[in-house]
Amino acid sequence: MQMNPDRNTQLCMSLSGRPGNFGLRFHNHLYEQLGLNFYYKAFSSQDLPGAVGGIRALGIRGCGVSMPFKEACIALVDELDASAAAIQSINTIVNTDGHLKAYNTDYIAIAQLLETHAVPKDTTFALRGSGGMAKAVASAFRDGGYKNGLILARNERAGRALAESLGYPWQAELGGRRPQMLINVTPIGMSGGPEADQLAFEVDAISSADILFDVVAIPSETPLIVRARAEGKHVITGLEVIAIQALEQFVLYTGVRPTAEQFQKAVAFARS
Amino acid sequence: MQMNPDRNTQLCMSLSGRPGNFGLRFHNHLYEQLGLNFYYKAFSSQDLPGAVGGIRALGIRGCGVSMPFKEACIALVDELDASAAAIQSINTIVNTDGHLKAYNTDYIAIAQLLETHAVPKDTTFALRGSGGMAKAVASAFRDGGYKNGLILARNERAGRALAESLGYPWQAELGGRRPQMLINVTPIGMSGGPEADQLAFEVDAISSADILFDVVAIPSETPLIVRARAEGKHVITGLEVIAIQALEQFVLYTGVRPTAEQFQKAVAFARS
Repeated sequence: MQMNPDRNTQLCMSLSGRPGNFGLRFHNHLYEQLGLNFYYKAFSSQDLPGAVGGIRALGIRGCGVSMPFKEACIALVDELDASAAAIQSINTIVNTDGHLKAYNTDYIAIAQLLETHAVPKDTTFALRGSGGMAKAVASAFRDGGYKNGLILARNERAGRALAESLGYPWQAELGGRRPQMLINVTPIGMSGGPEADQLAFEVDAISSADILFDVVAIPSETPLIVRARAEGKHVITGLEVIAIQALEQFVLYTGVRPTAEQFQKAVAFARS
Repeated sequence: MQMNPDRNTQLCMSLSGRPGNFGLRFHNHLYEQLGLNFYYKAFSSQDLPGAVGGIRALGIRGCGVSMPFKEACIALVDELDASAAAIQSINTIVNTDGHLKAYNTDYIAIAQLLETHAVPKDTTFALRGSGGMAKAVASAFRDGGYKNGLILARNERAGRALAESLGYPWQAELGGRRPQMLINVTPIGMSGGPEADQLAFEVDAISSADILFDVVAIPSETPLIVRARAEGKHVITGLEVIAIQALEQFVLYTGVRPTAEQFQKAVAFARS
């Protein structure tokens, strides 16, 4: 954060069921490095309308929105950016003189990663998951022109709904399919969860794939990523997703884009 | 502020029409010196219910309340401390797990100053002013057992109401009276105001008095205080009031009472 706060210091914040440290360390580190008069605070709340009302009334500049508020927030803002409108899920609110515009920088981050990792458009893929984040990831694939996909979800209703809304087929399990790319957008492998030590895909499917993408960020070295690295696969990690989505939030809040080096240092600091 | 904010950092704030720097510098300096995981932010707002709703929804620990919100806030909190209830004016909200209790640390500060300056109980005094702060100051005199007082106010309705509520007589001007103590609780002498270079009392009354007390804090060396010092009078300044009321807020928010030396250093830092 800026070292000498004054009456002009602008506040940014996050709102989530269980606040983490990554975002606040990332943003505050960059404020300090770039000499910006901002401070970032992580909040939790049981009262979403009250919290968003507070953002308006107090002129809080920006807010990162995490589980379980990503859908419920939509009714409380004034405008949806295209990144949020298409998937009806937001993770970022920008407050400009009381006008709240919502974005989905997860969607933006996934789209960027598909480009920077040069994933071929004709790649066959299976995406496991059917929640809000799965919607953001699958939408980025669809909008990026990736047509050869499959949605995997044990929850048939949610899985079918997501798949049909994007024009992909749904299956409960992979079965005999062996896609070139496997994407996990479930909590499997997440620290502290009931499936922390599980693989999101069966061993044989991992060996057959070329690219493994795990959106889980805590830890970003999930059992899936560890195994894929050991087999020499091309991997994309959840750390890349949370770092890029945080960077895009930073740019939206401050209007300043850090250099690649400043960005990498902020990510390293935020993880330390 | 604490140098390494994390997810457990507690936020305190101020809410005022025109935020200053004193409070945020005072509180953040002491957080840093005492190693407390707090951060203090100054806010302005056009929407008081929304702002207080935000304090509840976001779990903001404490809020200093300044003009023009000191009375309107009363309807929005859950409980009034005795310091606020008697005068129906608050300047501090403490949030304990969603329960908002309001205090008036201006009143507490005035009561302390009458003790530390050892002002005799039978001192004759005239207090000029009829606003919310005048109510806090006059109430502290009344509750401290100072019976020989007089309320001066050009606004007859407000002046009479305040005087009668406390059992003091009201006069529009001092006339021939020459009290031992003169107290200014109006904006006369305040920087940026229309009467910045004016004396709150006539020259002859200043010369006749023993103690001059000016609640104006910006600057605390008002024309009244400067003249009183030149005449060798006992003076009490607005700086003492804002410093002590901020200290009492700090204790209410954090549960920690700084040493006298830490307090004096924080005051010096906040003014610099």
